[in-house]
Amino acid sequence: MIRPQPQTSPVLHPVDSLSARLSDDLAAVNAIILDRMQSDIPLIPQLAGHLIAAGGKRIRPLLTLAAAALFGYDGGRQHRLAACVEFIHTATLLHDDVVDDSSQRRGKASANAIFGNEAAVLVGDFLFSRSFQLMVEDGSLDVLRVLSNASAVIAEGEVLQLSTANDIATTEDQYLRVISAKTAALFAAACEVGGLVADRGEKACAALRAYGMHLGVAFQISDDVLDYAAAEDRLGKSLGDDFREGKMTLPVIKALAQADESERTFWQRTLGALDQQDGDFETALDILRKHDALAASLQAARVEAEKGCLALETLPPHPVRDDLAALMSFAVERDY
Amino acid sequence: MIRPQPQTSPVLHPVDSLSARLSDDLAAVNAIILDRMQSDIPLIPQLAGHLIAAGGKRIRPLLTLAAAALFGYDGGRQHRLAACVEFIHTATLLHDDVVDDSSQRRGKASANAIFGNEAAVLVGDFLFSRSFQLMVEDGSLDVLRVLSNASAVIAEGEVLQLSTANDIATTEDQYLRVISAKTAALFAAACEVGGLVADRGEKACAALRAYGMHLGVAFQISDDVLDYAAAEDRLGKSLGDDFREGKMTLPVIKALAQADESERTFWQRTLGALDQQDGDFETALDILRKHDALAASLQAARVEAEKGCLALETLPPHPVRDDLAALMSFAVERDY
Repeated sequence: MIRPQPQTSPVLHPVDSLSARLSDDLAAVNAIILDRMQSDIPLIPQLAGHLIAAGGKRIRPLLTLAAAALFGYDGGRQHRLAACVEFIHTATLLHDDVVDDSSQRRGKASANAIFGNEAAVLVGDFLFSRSFQLMVEDGSLDVLRVLSNASAVIAEGEVLQLSTANDIATTEDQYLRVISAKTAALFAAACEVGGLVADRGEKACAALRAYGMHLGVAFQISDDVLDYAAAEDRLGKSLGDDFREGKMTLPVIKALAQADESERTFWQRTLGALDQQDGDFETALDILRKHDALAASLQAARVEAEKGCLALETLPPHPVRDDLAALMSFAVERDY
Repeated sequence: MIRPQPQTSPVLHPVDSLSARLSDDLAAVNAIILDRMQSDIPLIPQLAGHLIAAGGKRIRPLLTLAAAALFGYDGGRQHRLAACVEFIHTATLLHDDVVDDSSQRRGKASANAIFGNEAAVLVGDFLFSRSFQLMVEDGSLDVLRVLSNASAVIAEGEVLQLSTANDIATTEDQYLRVISAKTAALFAAACEVGGLVADRGEKACAALRAYGMHLGVAFQISDDVLDYAAAEDRLGKSLGDDFREGKMTLPVIKALAQADESERTFWQRTLGALDQQDGDFETALDILRKHDALAASLQAARVEAEKGCLALETLPPHPVRDDLAALMSFAVERDY
């Protein structure tokens, strides 16, 4: 049975291993991304390039490439579709940063901070539209269905997150629904699209989809834990962003379930009313640790990772499959 | 030859005539819109419903219905696709209002003013995604191509408009490019989609597309003239919005072409630097009138209208065709 592997510290990045194994594919995807983010309206490639050049690990397009490679498919369709996935992701990042009024993204000034919220909204719309143009060029209605469904679900998840922000009555179920939609839906779709181009039938696509969904949930839980517990210099964003915005993430929800009256009052003031003072973040950390809320959250991520590995096990053995298993472990055990 | 008809005052609304002729179709479209803007995230139907219930004339979906009806098509596909067109339009309105920081839309508080910019961005994303889901359900790659292309062009037009705002060097060509993209592309696509479902070949689709494009350009020029010259109580939005935001519209561009030094200084201060004082809007109106800039702009709209009617003439005679000709006249000659 494939299990999330315990990692020795420092954690090696399995995305780097996947990127190396699929380097030709990834180069093809990057070429399409650079080509198709062009427009003769100069602000579009400027702004899109700021975010796309800022990097990120291209995890989502790598999932599409990996899923196709797992079945030995190398017909080329996966390159354009991986670019679609990255464009959808980039569009949501641009809109996220506007919604969160973020000033940083991946350790650099965010696009909205440099170019303005207006441009970030509109260039996001452009990239989203461009993604659909690329899918239409590919010509598969199945792919279009998977990615248009994912897009709608992502937007619903973002709206639900907005609705639950600052509401300390938010439940674990609501939280899981938010992250399944806003994060995991695109991971799942990215994997499924790779299976669709390889044309290996519904069962394979369902397994890929399940892997991606569990990976996304595990990844987001871990991300939400790291927002309280990461080493700031490695995270590439400010520690405590979620706290400052009053986002209801799993560690807080778990701590609230065990909160005494004074702790409830603390969370209501800091997250509910966003009335925060110096030292509150440190107090929040103390409360989270007191209730083992960070560890319990990571445990929930590990359960997701195990489920994801079970799905992976139904797929054919392949070095890429090993990379995907390692990626699942990394999603949970990383410290940044 | 079909020509834009001179209108007697008060102008009858040809959209009402089209709506009456296509009332069953329009009812079917409205039912789909109401059904498919639903989500179990309550904020989505609340916010979308605010804008969609606020009405508007449904001009764009009517164009799709009219184009299908013109060829006697009544297979039902036009209903879902007309709803797609309206969803795309609604999504762009939501994002426009965020970009412009508008407080009013159609005479009511704008969605972003009530629900916040964050929700307006995200619900716009949802409606946009939902539109693509509906297209995928329809299953025509030709339709998907037309509407995904239109969406990308709209976003480019909006970015170009943002780039030219406050730049008094903006040319008529740039202006025409902005409005062709941000407004006319969806009018054109809405018409073409109606032709596609009726399946009457490329020439018919091209004529419908040309009609829609000229209608959109004429409509937007007229809109931009009305922003200076309309009766405020009939416009449903504040007079002078474009002026206050420093948008470079055709009347201003035409006046700038004839401006003396002091007028250039005036435009640079008010539109370029957005340094505006009481009485500036009235001064702007005086300058526009002095150079006949509003009349010259409307004349440009009339030329578009004539071109659109020429395209219409190549299509089969039909009462709906007469309505479309009347709509072209209305676009130019309306006073609100």
